[in-house]
Amino acid sequence: MRIKATIEYDGSAFCGWQAQEGLRTIEGELEAALQEITGQNIVVFGSGRTDAGVSAKNQVAHFDFDKELPPTKIAYAMNMYLPPEIRVKKTERVCNDFHARYDVKSKTYCYKMYASSIESPLRDATHLQVWPNLDFDAMIECTKHFVGTHDFKAFCQENPQLSTTVRIITQCEMTKIDDEITITGSGFLHNMVRIICGTILKVGQRKLDKDSIPDIIASRDRARAGQTLPAKGLTLDHVDYE
Amino acid sequence: MRIKATIEYDGSAFCGWQAQEGLRTIEGELEAALQEITGQNIVVFGSGRTDAGVSAKNQVAHFDFDKELPPTKIAYAMNMYLPPEIRVKKTERVCNDFHARYDVKSKTYCYKMYASSIESPLRDATHLQVWPNLDFDAMIECTKHFVGTHDFKAFCQENPQLSTTVRIITQCEMTKIDDEITITGSGFLHNMVRIICGTILKVGQRKLDKDSIPDIIASRDRARAGQTLPAKGLTLDHVDYE
Repeated sequence: MRIKATIEYDGSAFCGWQAQEGLRTIEGELEAALQEITGQNIVVFGSGRTDAGVSAKNQVAHFDFDKELPPTKIAYAMNMYLPPEIRVKKTERVCNDFHARYDVKSKTYCYKMYASSIESPLRDATHLQVWPNLDFDAMIECTKHFVGTHDFKAFCQENPQLSTTVRIITQCEMTKIDDEITITGSGFLHNMVRIICGTILKVGQRKLDKDSIPDIIASRDRARAGQTLPAKGLTLDHVDYE
Repeated sequence: MRIKATIEYDGSAFCGWQAQEGLRTIEGELEAALQEITGQNIVVFGSGRTDAGVSAKNQVAHFDFDKELPPTKIAYAMNMYLPPEIRVKKTERVCNDFHARYDVKSKTYCYKMYASSIESPLRDATHLQVWPNLDFDAMIECTKHFVGTHDFKAFCQENPQLSTTVRIITQCEMTKIDDEITITGSGFLHNMVRIICGTILKVGQRKLDKDSIPDIIASRDRARAGQTLPAKGLTLDHVDYE
């Protein structure tokens, strides 16, 4: 039977999602746990890879499981063999044609920063520290330019294998509470979030005009967008399916 | 000149606030940093001790500093010598009779839990995990009974040195967002917060009636209150002065 699993992990402990010989990865740990339970090599298909250092609250994966065990109990069995930095929050039976990657409708990511000239010990592991004199209003306003169907070539790493860089962003918002900035968005692709957040930050630093975003999108020129922000501020919040 | 310092720290890295020979403590690290800067033994007076494992967002301390350095720059100088788990966020000159402990008007603490049958890797270091089937409404309602001037003998550890166990709690509130519970309160004393939160949790677990709180307060009997919850969920949020 096909199982859909919802997984939380602290990305700081791993070399990313994808299984790699000799490296500690999320996919590798999940497959090792399934091997312990079943004695079989079971391949786990994630909704997508997360980079080294990126965390997830509700990553989704699927795999095929043929042992006698109620679907909801598989999560508990896997957790017995997983390191504490990974927990399967839920396992449920789905149709045999469900695919965690191909059936994704949208993914929501969250990037966290705090604006202070002094490091915050309580947030250092999970937030990016940024300089405090930012133009927050401009940052909040510029997020709207990312929403819609656009060619995001300027906002992704060069990848000749990619057939198209057109993506639909359904939501892009920034909230600020005290010194804490959170940018959430739906529909982003791998790496795009960190570059878009780097571009929003550049607007905050007054190095880019908030209304220059449509031009940068149209230019399809990676050099005109902001830097790729560090992985530690990024969390895959959840994945939506049809 | 007398300096008031505002300090953030990750309590999980330390054996509490109070300086103790051979142990890593917040006070010990602050005094060591001042020693490095001035070559003198400077005593740091905190607003109160925090236990091993308790964190602080805005702990307050005072000390006397006689070197030529603008008061606001002392924070930066101290941070050069402090471990990354402690940061002095602000230093400012205050009247010579300011006392970080004796002048406290109230302290606000925050206790964080999440209600789930499966551990949360992203919150394990900073939140207490509690079982999900709690009566949240009863928990929220019972918090009101703690507000006011009461003899909190039932809610503190036996301490013969304490002249009175009467305290004024000015605020006690619980909020719940998704599975996350935060209890904040002002005017608490050392250890009282963790016992009060343990009592609120006991109400949530249906082991105590929400309206039995006034009786428990009146009983002055520690055995009738809830357990002292673990340190890791507790953060000293801020300290108010007159």
